[in-house]
Amino acid sequence: MSTWKIDIIGKKPKLKNPILIEGLPGIGNVGKVAIDFMIEELKAVPLYDLFSYTFPHSVFVKENNLVELPSIKIYYKKTKKKDFLLLAGDVQPIDEVSSYEFSEKVIDIAQQYHCKEIITLGGIGLQDIPKKPKVYCTGNTRTIINRYKKDTAINDKLYGVVGPIVGISGLLLGLSTKRKIEAISFLSETYGHPLYLGIKGAREILKILNKKLDLNIDIRKLSKEIDEIESEMVKRTKEFVEVSKQTAIKKLKSKFKEMDYIG
Amino acid sequence: MSTWKIDIIGKKPKLKNPILIEGLPGIGNVGKVAIDFMIEELKAVPLYDLFSYTFPHSVFVKENNLVELPSIKIYYKKTKKKDFLLLAGDVQPIDEVSSYEFSEKVIDIAQQYHCKEIITLGGIGLQDIPKKPKVYCTGNTRTIINRYKKDTAINDKLYGVVGPIVGISGLLLGLSTKRKIEAISFLSETYGHPLYLGIKGAREILKILNKKLDLNIDIRKLSKEIDEIESEMVKRTKEFVEVSKQTAIKKLKSKFKEMDYIG
Amino acid sequence: MSTWKIDIIGKKPKLKNPILIEGLPGIGNVGKVAIDFMIEELKAVPLYDLFSYTFPHSVFVKENNLVELPSIKIYYKKTKKKDFLLLAGDVQPIDEVSSYEFSEKVIDIAQQYHCKEIITLGGIGLQDIPKKPKVYCTGNTRTIINRYKKDTAINDKLYGVVGPIVGISGLLLGLSTKRKIEAISFLSETYGHPLYLGIKGAREILKILNKKLDLNIDIRKLSKEIDEIESEMVKRTKEFVEVSKQTAIKKLKSKFKEMDYIG
Amino acid sequence: MSTWKIDIIGKKPKLKNPILIEGLPGIGNVGKVAIDFMIEELKAVPLYDLFSYTFPHSVFVKENNLVELPSIKIYYKKTKKKDFLLLAGDVQPIDEVSSYEFSEKVIDIAQQYHCKEIITLGGIGLQDIPKKPKVYCTGNTRTIINRYKKDTAINDKLYGVVGPIVGISGLLLGLSTKRKIEAISFLSETYGHPLYLGIKGAREILKILNKKLDLNIDIRKLSKEIDEIESEMVKRTKEFVEVSKQTAIKKLKSKFKEMDYIG
Repeated sequence: MSTWKIDIIGKKPKLKNPILIEGLPGIGNVGKVAIDFMIEELKAVPLYDLFSYTFPHSVFVKENNLVELPSIKIYYKKTKKKDFLLLAGDVQPIDEVSSYEFSEKVIDIAQQYHCKEIITLGGIGLQDIPKKPKVYCTGNTRTIINRYKKDTAINDKLYGVVGPIVGISGLLLGLSTKRKIEAISFLSETYGHPLYLGIKGAREILKILNKKLDLNIDIRKLSKEIDEIESEMVKRTKEFVEVSKQTAIKKLKSKFKEMDYIG
Repeated sequence: MSTWKIDIIGKKPKLKNPILIEGLPGIGNVGKVAIDFMIEELKAVPLYDLFSYTFPHSVFVKENNLVELPSIKIYYKKTKKKDFLLLAGDVQPIDEVSSYEFSEKVIDIAQQYHCKEIITLGGIGLQDIPKKPKVYCTGNTRTIINRYKKDTAINDKLYGVVGPIVGISGLLLGLSTKRKIEAISFLSETYGHPLYLGIKGAREILKILNKKLDLNIDIRKLSKEIDEIESEMVKRTKEFVEVSKQTAIKKLKSKFKEMDYIG
Repeated sequence: MSTWKIDIIGKKPKLKNPILIEGLPGIGNVGKVAIDFMIEELKAVPLYDLFSYTFPHSVFVKENNLVELPSIKIYYKKTKKKDFLLLAGDVQPIDEVSSYEFSEKVIDIAQQYHCKEIITLGGIGLQDIPKKPKVYCTGNTRTIINRYKKDTAINDKLYGVVGPIVGISGLLLGLSTKRKIEAISFLSETYGHPLYLGIKGAREILKILNKKLDLNIDIRKLSKEIDEIESEMVKRTKEFVEVSKQTAIKKLKSKFKEMDYIG
Repeated sequence: MSTWKIDIIGKKPKLKNPILIEGLPGIGNVGKVAIDFMIEELKAVPLYDLFSYTFPHSVFVKENNLVELPSIKIYYKKTKKKDFLLLAGDVQPIDEVSSYEFSEKVIDIAQQYHCKEIITLGGIGLQDIPKKPKVYCTGNTRTIINRYKKDTAINDKLYGVVGPIVGISGLLLGLSTKRKIEAISFLSETYGHPLYLGIKGAREILKILNKKLDLNIDIRKLSKEIDEIESEMVKRTKEFVEVSKQTAIKKLKSKFKEMDYIG
């Protein structure tokens, strides 16, 4: 029995082999920053709400002082040249089973729209802040890698640079193979600190997507908005950390002494 | 398959759009102190017993030297002006899935009685003992916040003051939105130590409830009883801590050395 | 879906309102030492094998250099005056859900034989080795406590002496209440070190059982066999510790650094 | 509901009472090194793919810079004298329930081919690197131990040398008993460091298998290839460690402070 609840928002659009792009929270939130900027710039439309009881059992207090549950959504956008499904959210599933189930559900949805290509976005954590973050890629076919590598500065020699790709960014690549969907991941260098926001890394990825997918996003705007977004995101990030901390505290509390118990 | 067992005690009363008020163990046990005092003063009647195999696997030794399982109950009380459902107990669900399931079950019950409003009670942990604890609120609509803020000293600027609201106090707010139930949380400042009992914080919350809900509770009694309740609660709190400790010990025992094993 | 598999060994005996006595591993293994000695002395017959995939995922190497899976069994014994079901084993369920499920299954079996009384055995861990361990009791009715307290040195003032009673020894008491079965727990003082074997504590409990249940066990034999049993049990105990350690190691391995990862 | 997915690759061969040999990652990867070498040397054919959502939620970047999901496979090999099923993979189930379920599934498959004998391979971790690793064995019948001990230097006095045998190597022995399948485990001494590769230990086990099962493997080749395999395996091992680390980090992150939270 799956723990995932998927609600459709509004009615299904007609999409022509949309490309699914994923950007959930992760290293430096590179993927999240990139996808949230795309959704805003492209005025993408919310289409699905994905919810699970395995999400953090808490609510956020928003700027308007009202509460909201954690949320993951799929948006869509039709452009002249290409159609897109965009996967964004506040959290990503943490445990193994939820992660696999979630990824399969996302691919199920993508396939309903005859999606033939999946792109996942993430970060590679470095010990220091990179001045000019490099973008690496890997994928499930040589063809898709070559297609994106052409005319860009993407480095496709990822083997040995990083360990395994953990979470939804990795699983969507691996599970797409069985579904005959080509999938690629763009991973930008970023500072590996949990609270750092890899906005520069996100910008490097967006440049590539802009060029190869004809998005016509004004990336200079991202540069302008960096300060503003950064302060907002820092707040958000603190909230996520807080949630994990509190869950952890409940579980770890009082594990210190070992003697005087009964049974 | 839900792990929750719900038994009705006696027979269903007729209630007129009762307000559900929750006060389970949490920061400084502010919510628990407040609700237990209300139940006693209002002579509220036990209506539902909620039980789960995800509760601590242990029994408490009571003052009469007999044992009892951990328990969560819903009580009801009819007053001249308003009807109430009161959610109180020894424990609160700890893991994510149990917390969501439990909250949904509670709202299911509330809806059977055409409940239109939910109030949750909790604490905001400070580094020091507050002399005059302030009460904050947040909720799922602006309307309910304004209704309670009127003529009281409640501070509704919670954004940035705390991180997310974890546990049943938070989830009942978030999940009520989907059910078209207005929900508000009163959070009183308290000392953030696990063994501290925020009785003063509870008193500040009770003053607000007394005024806005016409409860006619003699809050001075709480002041008198503070010593007595405090000593009883300290015992109880020690027991909860003990349970977590022992569960934790079983799981953590002997994780220190790393070499001489086999496989 | 329960994870418990219960196999009957041989055919069902006719038992007259048997008393179920539980002694699984716990503090000082007091309960296990007592029940294993009883089973041997009474020549009790194995009747049920209880198995679960939540047991440690490992096998023990026995003295004959062959392997065996962890095991919990229910034995029976008919005496002239009373009939008994005896619950003994290598392990006890660790997590909450398994513990509750297991306890319910055991009571289900007990009820098939019209069992009206359950006794659980355990230890109270002290900071030092007690010279003359005291035996405390608690239960789910005043009647059963008074029955056993009569003419014995049992102390029934357990409130405040210990925290909650964790594990099967506690749950069988709490869950029996709902089934209208009287239940009592005998808890002997013992040294609270995980590797200590409370044989003296077990002996004090056996004296009481011997007297109140007319068991006719030669307890002096236990004194003689202390050395022998002790060395065997130390080996066994080391094995249990080893299992927990290895499971824990697998889970905890490499949780130290926090930076250079990807996602 | 089992979490295991089993796919057959190609079509079922006719096998004559094949011997199942298991070599999954474990102490020093002794079993994995041995079985991977056997599969390569014997040109064994992949027959089943076993997959579970309880595997690490990540993908590996391969030498060709493409990704692949974690995988466990059963291969088969027909030789003149004997037929074999070989169980090998990148990971082994970690939690109790998955381990038991997986082992039962593997035995189910073995029984479809009328398998009468199971061999599991593993390591015994020492504090130092052994110069000439000794091989111990244990099993579920005296007969199978005697059969393999004859004319070899295997030590069958394992009792007291190690604690319990944890994981699939142990469970396959224990669970085979109920299925009337003889099972034996060969455990070679090795250095107990998580990153050490017990290639020498694997070689000692392979010598025994070669002799008793007439495998005709050129073990000198293993000696030659040690350097090459070692460097490859070190990379792989780092990846596994990385996966556990990252999963652990997500779960443990921010568990340090204990005060300022709410609820």
